[in-house]
Amino acid sequence: MEEEIKVGLCGLGTVGSGVFKLLSENASLIKQRTGRDIIIKRVATLDRYDNLGLDFSNTEVSDSVDDILRDPEIDIIVELIGGKTIAKKIVLESLQNGKSVVTANKALLSEYLEEIFRAADLAAGTLGFEAAVAGGIPIIRSIRQGFSGDRIEKFSGIVNGTANYILTAMSRDGVSFDHALKAAQEKGFAEADPAFDIEGIDAAHKVILLMAVSFNAYFDFSQLSVEGITGIEPIDIAIADASGFVIKLLGSGSRTANGFQGRVGPALVSKNNMLASVSGAFNAVSVWGNFVGETMSYGAGAGSYPTASAVVSDIIETIRAKSNGMDNPLPLLNINAEHLTHQDIIPPEQTDGAFYLRLRLDNTEKSVGDIIRILDEESIGIQSITQRPISNDLPTQKYMIIFTESANEGQVKIAIEKLNGLSFVTTLVKMIRVEQD
Amino acid sequence: MEEEIKVGLCGLGTVGSGVFKLLSENASLIKQRTGRDIIIKRVATLDRYDNLGLDFSNTEVSDSVDDILRDPEIDIIVELIGGKTIAKKIVLESLQNGKSVVTANKALLSEYLEEIFRAADLAAGTLGFEAAVAGGIPIIRSIRQGFSGDRIEKFSGIVNGTANYILTAMSRDGVSFDHALKAAQEKGFAEADPAFDIEGIDAAHKVILLMAVSFNAYFDFSQLSVEGITGIEPIDIAIADASGFVIKLLGSGSRTANGFQGRVGPALVSKNNMLASVSGAFNAVSVWGNFVGETMSYGAGAGSYPTASAVVSDIIETIRAKSNGMDNPLPLLNINAEHLTHQDIIPPEQTDGAFYLRLRLDNTEKSVGDIIRILDEESIGIQSITQRPISNDLPTQKYMIIFTESANEGQVKIAIEKLNGLSFVTTLVKMIRVEQD
Repeated sequence: MEEEIKVGLCGLGTVGSGVFKLLSENASLIKQRTGRDIIIKRVATLDRYDNLGLDFSNTEVSDSVDDILRDPEIDIIVELIGGKTIAKKIVLESLQNGKSVVTANKALLSEYLEEIFRAADLAAGTLGFEAAVAGGIPIIRSIRQGFSGDRIEKFSGIVNGTANYILTAMSRDGVSFDHALKAAQEKGFAEADPAFDIEGIDAAHKVILLMAVSFNAYFDFSQLSVEGITGIEPIDIAIADASGFVIKLLGSGSRTANGFQGRVGPALVSKNNMLASVSGAFNAVSVWGNFVGETMSYGAGAGSYPTASAVVSDIIETIRAKSNGMDNPLPLLNINAEHLTHQDIIPPEQTDGAFYLRLRLDNTEKSVGDIIRILDEESIGIQSITQRPISNDLPTQKYMIIFTESANEGQVKIAIEKLNGLSFVTTLVKMIRVEQD
Repeated sequence: MEEEIKVGLCGLGTVGSGVFKLLSENASLIKQRTGRDIIIKRVATLDRYDNLGLDFSNTEVSDSVDDILRDPEIDIIVELIGGKTIAKKIVLESLQNGKSVVTANKALLSEYLEEIFRAADLAAGTLGFEAAVAGGIPIIRSIRQGFSGDRIEKFSGIVNGTANYILTAMSRDGVSFDHALKAAQEKGFAEADPAFDIEGIDAAHKVILLMAVSFNAYFDFSQLSVEGITGIEPIDIAIADASGFVIKLLGSGSRTANGFQGRVGPALVSKNNMLASVSGAFNAVSVWGNFVGETMSYGAGAGSYPTASAVVSDIIETIRAKSNGMDNPLPLLNINAEHLTHQDIIPPEQTDGAFYLRLRLDNTEKSVGDIIRILDEESIGIQSITQRPISNDLPTQKYMIIFTESANEGQVKIAIEKLNGLSFVTTLVKMIRVEQD
């Protein structure tokens, strides 16, 4: 490898322009740390770039990624255009051509994980994807290297900043989901089409990657249970608060005696849990190892500069390894390729959990007995039952809040169907998982 | 390097026995991750070891580290005996003999950082010291690799579990320092001689290492401002709580326009700061980079298994690098050796900060004017002044609580001397730094 490292940057959007700025602003520091000058030799972008305040005097800008892919002088290709078509071509072709690749593309990786990792294992180059999960938080690196001696038992994290921003605003200001979403959009914390964030898809992409690195296996995205935050109401946040919880959108995975669990969904998190303190657009991931115990990493999960920090850390790791004449210094999934397996995710109905159930009742006098009978039929233990009035104008209506003991999720869902059929249950029962510390 | 990696373990105390158990219990997983079997070929210990439940069938145990140092078959030497005499000899001699070394010895490293790092830079082996700072939290790795593209601006952390356990108990139970210390000793969270922990020395060792890795330079331990928690009283914790703060023992370092700051001392931490949520024996370190922004890493800062997790992660990093034919894959202080410098730590009197001042006053009628005049003479702005009664039996006595604006610490100390000279100030003024978020 030559003294100068030549990078080809595919994409000059939020993250791409951040990478450009970081490599310029911290150039002398990075040279002291790696012994190399990093030159962005080529950029491919379809957008206007003359208004970004960047100095392109050493860089050729074009609208075609092929100019980057065909340039034999380029050592490291950074894929930041997103999507799954051109991005896939860039990643696979670059690896096949012996280039090192850095990508932040969680959608691509979570769908084509095996194909891309196989290509990387065969290739002379390295593949970095730290920026694909939780932005600036070095969580992939922590699991692959920091906890490399541990059997990872479980992780649980806040991995979507938009959803956390909205939930934080609902909790702080007592506003509805729609109101909080609109405010987040106005402040630039949610996109015009927020579906990926609020419906849990973006978090699910990250969970598939975290499961792969934590449990050293490939998992199928379609097996993951995914629920967003659009159904969270202010009343649930208020009741959770009064009971010592906050509601967070959690992405989690765990290794159990029966197999692997994985899910994305809203959860009641105890205020004693560090994740409860993560507010606004920040992310955090807790990881449990069989020796290290509980850990948590916290930081900015998105944004131009934090994500650029993660991309550049992968560029630097690539350079440090290459400078030592080393390819693929670390197994991609923290396990040597010959031990990689495919693993199923247990369907949520076959897993256990504790649950918060909110029922709206009319004429509650005789209802408790019926409700307890239904829960009892499905072997659901009750930790607490509380009733609270809805308003003075509705004297016969009440909320009933049930916290269950740990129970089978499938049976809880059957119980809810039965509860929904009771004549005095006036709106569908709301069910939210309670995170176990 | 042969198929089998042979480790020499110096020390079989809390951490050493944890390393032994981890390498045994997770052996097959570690083999899948590294492609190697790790054999603890020799152990040196002066203590009884037949009651630890460990299987020594592949291990020779002796009371002399020389048996380990002289064994040419040993690849990696793990120094876990502590102290600065034999430990220093083990580390330096091993590096000079071309061995790789892993150590958790913060006292040794913080005092002989340059001598040991020079030896490591000259050596063919690697030096791992992740376990020396914050136990199982991979904070050294995060700074060296996760934030390798960032200029680190500042760090601030809870890096002594014993002190945090005591402060948490004082805060939760309203008990005195002495009471909380005694309870911590009874529960095994504080040693019989707790001086290193409660006087901030242990935290100071870690701060010197964090400053070195964060700011890519050597710092002199004797320049660090170090204060412990023995002077914290329940009244300060109660007032802090009522003002929205908790009191934590913080170790911090920062890069400023005038040079580098570093200190260990109690501080009022806003409840909005993630560090405020770190309770009991846990540790956490916040790091700010110029691109990644604020981050935090949280976990068990001590204990047999978490510290063993960090030691083994360094063993695995060594094996992965060696398997790729690579020596010293990472610059020890996150910067290539030729750029290493010595840097001074600015004396605390020359730094700025906001402060909490607690005065005990008799006959408060005319006192406020005198106090404000003294603060004004030293250019200390006042954010708030509050008075609170001490007890019904002492109607003329009051506490006066002053939160200052950011002010020069030297001038604050001069003002305190003057305040202590006032006739109506009945006990010495208590001063605690307020952590800026």
